[in-house]
Amino acid sequence: MDDFVFQNTTKIIFGRGVEAKVGVEARAFATRVLLLYGGGSVRKSGLLDRVAASLKEAGVSFVELGGILPNPRLSLVREGIELCRREKAGLVLAIGGGSAIDSAKAIALGVPYAGDVWDFFAGKAEAKGALPVGTVLTIPAAGSEASTATVITNEDGMLKRGFNSSFLYPRFSLLNPELAFTLPRDQVANGIADIMSHLFERYFTDSKPVELTDRLIEATLRTVIDLAPKVLSKPDDYDAWAEIMWAGTIAHNNLLNTGRVGDWGSHDLEHELSSAYGIAHGAGLAVVFPAWMKYSYRHDVARFAQLAARVWGVDHAYFDPERSALAGIARLESYWLSLGLSVRLSGLGIGPGRIPEMADKLSDMGRKRVGNFMKVGKAEAEAIYALAL
Amino acid sequence: MDDFVFQNTTKIIFGRGVEAKVGVEARAFATRVLLLYGGGSVRKSGLLDRVAASLKEAGVSFVELGGILPNPRLSLVREGIELCRREKAGLVLAIGGGSAIDSAKAIALGVPYAGDVWDFFAGKAEAKGALPVGTVLTIPAAGSEASTATVITNEDGMLKRGFNSSFLYPRFSLLNPELAFTLPRDQVANGIADIMSHLFERYFTDSKPVELTDRLIEATLRTVIDLAPKVLSKPDDYDAWAEIMWAGTIAHNNLLNTGRVGDWGSHDLEHELSSAYGIAHGAGLAVVFPAWMKYSYRHDVARFAQLAARVWGVDHAYFDPERSALAGIARLESYWLSLGLSVRLSGLGIGPGRIPEMADKLSDMGRKRVGNFMKVGKAEAEAIYALAL
Repeated sequence: MDDFVFQNTTKIIFGRGVEAKVGVEARAFATRVLLLYGGGSVRKSGLLDRVAASLKEAGVSFVELGGILPNPRLSLVREGIELCRREKAGLVLAIGGGSAIDSAKAIALGVPYAGDVWDFFAGKAEAKGALPVGTVLTIPAAGSEASTATVITNEDGMLKRGFNSSFLYPRFSLLNPELAFTLPRDQVANGIADIMSHLFERYFTDSKPVELTDRLIEATLRTVIDLAPKVLSKPDDYDAWAEIMWAGTIAHNNLLNTGRVGDWGSHDLEHELSSAYGIAHGAGLAVVFPAWMKYSYRHDVARFAQLAARVWGVDHAYFDPERSALAGIARLESYWLSLGLSVRLSGLGIGPGRIPEMADKLSDMGRKRVGNFMKVGKAEAEAIYALAL
Repeated sequence: MDDFVFQNTTKIIFGRGVEAKVGVEARAFATRVLLLYGGGSVRKSGLLDRVAASLKEAGVSFVELGGILPNPRLSLVREGIELCRREKAGLVLAIGGGSAIDSAKAIALGVPYAGDVWDFFAGKAEAKGALPVGTVLTIPAAGSEASTATVITNEDGMLKRGFNSSFLYPRFSLLNPELAFTLPRDQVANGIADIMSHLFERYFTDSKPVELTDRLIEATLRTVIDLAPKVLSKPDDYDAWAEIMWAGTIAHNNLLNTGRVGDWGSHDLEHELSSAYGIAHGAGLAVVFPAWMKYSYRHDVARFAQLAARVWGVDHAYFDPERSALAGIARLESYWLSLGLSVRLSGLGIGPGRIPEMADKLSDMGRKRVGNFMKVGKAEAEAIYALAL
């Protein structure tokens, strides 16, 4: 086990109707907040009204900023920073999934910073603080509700880049599984792929031994794998959604990478895909990860075999562990297909055309490599994208 | 899944030599601390000197209070409270295991409270605050290093009682697995029984479904079960100790009871045992828990069968789940025996003599019942103690 420091301070409030508590929670940090959300669904569902009512009741005023898109954009983050400053908002409150929360974090980071907020994502600035962030989660997927991470797309060059800081742990996150009942089917499946990918990124490590966290990751994967078909077939199954929603948070709150270094190359590979083609992050991961696994499994056959046996129930081939490893990857593909996800670029209508461009961008024209378990530069990226065709 | 609020703010610093960071961590809270420890082992091992050097280097002065006993006593807590007030210590720093840390928490609770600290344990006072607590953990067992709990014994009547408050999460805990290398063999085994019991207490619940936390508990149990024989046979196995130490923290940091109500009756049953006979908490749990299981399994055979299959690898008897449940309990007994633990009162040299007295005390002369999964009053306590003979 590697040495580590772990302190996740996010307060999780979980259960039916917990959005009614947002006013009281927000009031502990500010009397005026910036309220961030995406499209019309939070308005249509009445959630925005309930949040507004709770804020008013607690004596918290707010200014709204809607229109956050999937793969959230830098321009809106800059707009939010200006709005926060002008309106003297003391808390950024995101209503939504990863896009709203990641935007809230980027805004919170930018407000006290004198330079341009992209500096953080471009590796030119260190975080020295941030406004507090609160969230009302509507989509179990990104895990941003209790993570240190934010991922933003700079429209100038369509660069999708992430930034991590312990200042970005939300101060509170309100998790009501009922809010997921009305999600479109494809968004549910993408969210499942996202959650599972967060677990895979952590699982594939060279740190060893890491037995406890291996088993905790496997436990979380099995729960998600078991229950995802249930929420897809019965979207108002509170019990199943509750497990999935909490699993989505645990998958990304940094507990499961204590003492180990995850890979994260597939996330980088996917970011090029979603910025080139505008597809949803989870949909991109469902295509990238099986290809990455096929490319990478020889680096540690035992680890892939362990995953196959413990998570997918593959009967371990003691005399041919490679067979177990490959069987696990095949099981993942079948499983994601069964949820209605595509596991090939062709399934997303994407051909080989832009592979060299994506590999160039990922590797900064061959100058850098991403990933820890499997180092991926330009050549490796091209090979992995090709395996995904 | 039950509704819940979860926020564990303890900062964990984990790895070789992390005790050298205690000065810097303490300095964030106070310039003068009360240093609490047990017997001579922390002095003999040089740990106390290293902690003192780190504090001095960070400009933190300290006053010492040693002599904390297993099943820590109220009198020493009261002494610590007086000392803290007199010396104006702003942080209570525990060096040791559960006894030192629980004492530190009780002292931290008592300092700002005008009445007698026992009021909290007697259910006569609510916590409104506490001094900050820091810990340097030497014994993986109690999990107090990241928990809300403290358990203290009042010598007046030998009442062993617990108290919980989110004010009692330590601000920081330094976990160096190397510090466990020199633990006596029986203390190691008792610690394993303690960790496993914390997991069992959370596992036995009427809340359902609780699939994610079931699996996370099972994952933690399997890790401990797998590695405990390793640290017993090779006490300087850093890798194995690291897994056990982190598992001991996770077993009790409240993550694994999110959305579920644990039982905790066995802890109460054990407290009577250790206050009557002065045995170690873990040793008492190893005797009480199998007896409690034999008494309780009919309340939810499926849950016991699931534990048997998933944790102990018992081949599930689909047509006779009770057989699986009982096989799991038998496996636990054999396992604990293999670690050198006793699983019967007779193994601790205890006869039936004081069973009625313990059952009276536990149930407040038949007026109350403990436990949630299995309600245990006077009659049930007598039956369970009898099963442990």
